[in-house]
Amino acid sequence: MNGAESLLKTLEAGGVDTCFANPGTSEMHLVEAFDRVAGIRPILCLHETVASGAADGYGRMKRKPAMTILHLGPGLANASSNLHNAGKANTPVINIIGDHATYHRKNNPPLQSDIEGLAKVFSHWVRTCEDPVELAGLGREAIGAAMTPPGRIASLIVPADVSWGDAGALPEIDKIQSFEQSVGERRIGEIAAVLKGGGRAAILMNGRAVADEKCLEAAGRIAAHCGAGLFTDTFSPRMARGRGRAVIERLPYLNDAAAAQLKGLTRLILVGSKPPVSFFAYQGKPVLLAPEDCSIHILSEPHEDPLGALEGLASLLNAPYGIEKVYEGKSPDLPSGEMSMEKVGAAIAALMPVNAIVSDESNTSGPHIFKAAEFATAHDWLFLTGGSIGQCLPLGAGASAACPGCKVICLESDGSAMYSIQALWTMARENLDVTTVIFSNRKYAILNIEFMRMGFKSQGKKAKELFDLSRPDLDFVSLARGMGVTGARASTASEFVDLFGNAMEKRGPDLIEVIL
Amino acid sequence: MNGAESLLKTLEAGGVDTCFANPGTSEMHLVEAFDRVAGIRPILCLHETVASGAADGYGRMKRKPAMTILHLGPGLANASSNLHNAGKANTPVINIIGDHATYHRKNNPPLQSDIEGLAKVFSHWVRTCEDPVELAGLGREAIGAAMTPPGRIASLIVPADVSWGDAGALPEIDKIQSFEQSVGERRIGEIAAVLKGGGRAAILMNGRAVADEKCLEAAGRIAAHCGAGLFTDTFSPRMARGRGRAVIERLPYLNDAAAAQLKGLTRLILVGSKPPVSFFAYQGKPVLLAPEDCSIHILSEPHEDPLGALEGLASLLNAPYGIEKVYEGKSPDLPSGEMSMEKVGAAIAALMPVNAIVSDESNTSGPHIFKAAEFATAHDWLFLTGGSIGQCLPLGAGASAACPGCKVICLESDGSAMYSIQALWTMARENLDVTTVIFSNRKYAILNIEFMRMGFKSQGKKAKELFDLSRPDLDFVSLARGMGVTGARASTASEFVDLFGNAMEKRGPDLIEVIL
Repeated sequence: MNGAESLLKTLEAGGVDTCFANPGTSEMHLVEAFDRVAGIRPILCLHETVASGAADGYGRMKRKPAMTILHLGPGLANASSNLHNAGKANTPVINIIGDHATYHRKNNPPLQSDIEGLAKVFSHWVRTCEDPVELAGLGREAIGAAMTPPGRIASLIVPADVSWGDAGALPEIDKIQSFEQSVGERRIGEIAAVLKGGGRAAILMNGRAVADEKCLEAAGRIAAHCGAGLFTDTFSPRMARGRGRAVIERLPYLNDAAAAQLKGLTRLILVGSKPPVSFFAYQGKPVLLAPEDCSIHILSEPHEDPLGALEGLASLLNAPYGIEKVYEGKSPDLPSGEMSMEKVGAAIAALMPVNAIVSDESNTSGPHIFKAAEFATAHDWLFLTGGSIGQCLPLGAGASAACPGCKVICLESDGSAMYSIQALWTMARENLDVTTVIFSNRKYAILNIEFMRMGFKSQGKKAKELFDLSRPDLDFVSLARGMGVTGARASTASEFVDLFGNAMEKRGPDLIEVIL
Repeated sequence: MNGAESLLKTLEAGGVDTCFANPGTSEMHLVEAFDRVAGIRPILCLHETVASGAADGYGRMKRKPAMTILHLGPGLANASSNLHNAGKANTPVINIIGDHATYHRKNNPPLQSDIEGLAKVFSHWVRTCEDPVELAGLGREAIGAAMTPPGRIASLIVPADVSWGDAGALPEIDKIQSFEQSVGERRIGEIAAVLKGGGRAAILMNGRAVADEKCLEAAGRIAAHCGAGLFTDTFSPRMARGRGRAVIERLPYLNDAAAAQLKGLTRLILVGSKPPVSFFAYQGKPVLLAPEDCSIHILSEPHEDPLGALEGLASLLNAPYGIEKVYEGKSPDLPSGEMSMEKVGAAIAALMPVNAIVSDESNTSGPHIFKAAEFATAHDWLFLTGGSIGQCLPLGAGASAACPGCKVICLESDGSAMYSIQALWTMARENLDVTTVIFSNRKYAILNIEFMRMGFKSQGKKAKELFDLSRPDLDFVSLARGMGVTGARASTASEFVDLFGNAMEKRGPDLIEVIL
């Protein structure tokens, strides 16, 4: 058995079943070996940012790693911005990066670069295999690294001659599990005492604490019982939301608004989160968002089990079952008439099917949709975790590959969409059940806001041009057609309701361009 | 004056006039300062791979740096694959990369990453400015670094508070020139002696030696006078070519063919090149392409002046003027009838206007075009220098921004086109005079070849899928329309002749999809 096959069989035995790939010559033996490894499905992506973003979406939904195959340093470089987002989301991902044959590296051929140096920037674990007999073992290590709680980016560099060399017999591999560390009784007791103290308290959650509805329920019981606030960071990897799930307030993106929401707090309990900070710094404004005299306490770190900690805390506090505040009420009525983001939000909330997965990079267009979705049926919401735009469509593709039974809804801004528009082709190739909604306001609207927040009174001609996406207008229906995805344009709320309603009724990829 | 303005004014004074940008919040003060710096034109790119590829194209044509503006680590990551190509081309480029305010970095906000670690992988010079009063000086250093012969990638990281802080008065800046080192008489004399020795000799050139027609002429005189071969590497940054220019043979991409071309050589003289090596390694095949008993001699290194060296050598050898072999003959007749790559090559050679710039990433579709262009009018040919696909369209956009009076022709493969298709929008926004020809064979054809070259007899189902670009077919006319570029499809040679002829007659961007 050659190295390539031993690696793929190891990953398969360890539970990897999906590979997002754009291979090249140095990865040919991996490509060839796929046909002897029944359990891994390779999915072709037309740019590596799609591959890494899809692996992120897959990992957020399955809580186990997908693998990528990337072509030397440049392939890894192309994947890196969405690996940045995946790393900030604590998503488990395994990258297999091809390299020149070990004996050819000294000749510095055109595709040579410092792959290890590059991989270290956006990975938690990096190894280069120099010997085919060690490849299976390193593959096993990579799985372990990726599954280290709360989830890690593992990058394994595989030179071509390590892929084609003789790897000997395959070692036995168990499915590797992730075991989150438990939070001890002592710490739970300390937090209980903090919550019983005076002043205004709140719980700030992120990671699995907001992805798992049982965590939300326990936290909601604690918050209701203690009269504490229950918050989540602006951007979390995945949030369980919709009717019947515990209410949790999301901190606003704008630092002034977030600080206002936290004002008056004297105690902040962190569950898988960090002390809240401003996304960017602004002259003369604080970057730490909690009040200065607010004490900060950790119930659970991101690598620890939030469910055990929250249920233990609720129990210790004798917080009754069923007292948590939950989202309730009827779906909004279907809107009609002129276009507005409130109406788009109402339509999406009313029409989304149960267990839908929303990949949200709608930026300035999004707040009304997120608000309206309180009244939607139970669903998962995935956010832009690392601030690197171009996450939404790849993430949605990967989530759909992970959960083929769920409708995926991508909410994407025009400027961000252009960062990874190639994902549409993979949606078509794999017939992924993804509806992409593009909000075309013909500008980087967030940058207009940020510019003014810097204290400038007006924009010069050159500055304006750098935020403007008109001249020419992007036409996303044509872009979708170019990649085999059916698209249509909605200029009124009524048109949007029709298009979105039809999309929810059928299976497969489509695109709706909302003209704002 | 704030740091941002002091930096831009320094770069302007140093001769920088073009900036390919996709800025974000941490670069807002740079954006704002553009309207007070008349000499620099910012050009918006919808993905950073377009910005870095365009800076490469600009630098290859102007032999001075364009600047980029990139948004923290993820923006730089997105730019990196085309920076890899630019670095391999020895193109001067100045990257200005925004970062969080110095005092905010310790809070690890979502967009935080190790920017320096990332920049070092694909840059020759990296600095982070920590104090606004030092920014102008570092800007000056960046120009010097980029202009260090033969051309370098300089990356300057600028935290937001360094941009907005008070930089004091602007120091005086001269335009910084690049001075290639001269090759001494002694080395020229040694090479003359080598050429007069026995056996079969050849000159292998790259860099400015093939970009500058005077270098080609001197090398052609030497080769003709000594009966030596005159070769260039498969991939050079820029080649002066067409009728009246000295003939130089390009080494083939396939290592067997390249080794065959070099067979029997006893002496190889390098002019800005390196000993030729295989692009990839293949089991059981040599990676060094020159014969084992061929001695290798260096006339000039990439950072040295090839023109002085070649003219000095020609003079020392008493090589007469006018003896060099030049491309001559009539343009081919315009083809008609069914499509073939030979006919496409003939049509392009016949119709391209004088001083056209060809950005070539046509891969398997390209050899017939390159061959036919021997009979075209004088032009420049730009190759994929680093093997990272997705260079062609950005490079063409940048070359056009550098040389608005020249028609740019992008020859691009379908698979590679999808790596940086966003460049079409910038062509439309800036009304760049670029004709993009896409060769749609609906596959990564090169990978089918490479797979077989690995010794595999047949492809399994999964392997096939990873090389296949059908299901769905890409439709580049729709993709172009989506970005405001007029496109049309050519299914016959006659259709191609009509479309390409019209494109050469008019100004502005357009696209022709050649269905193969």
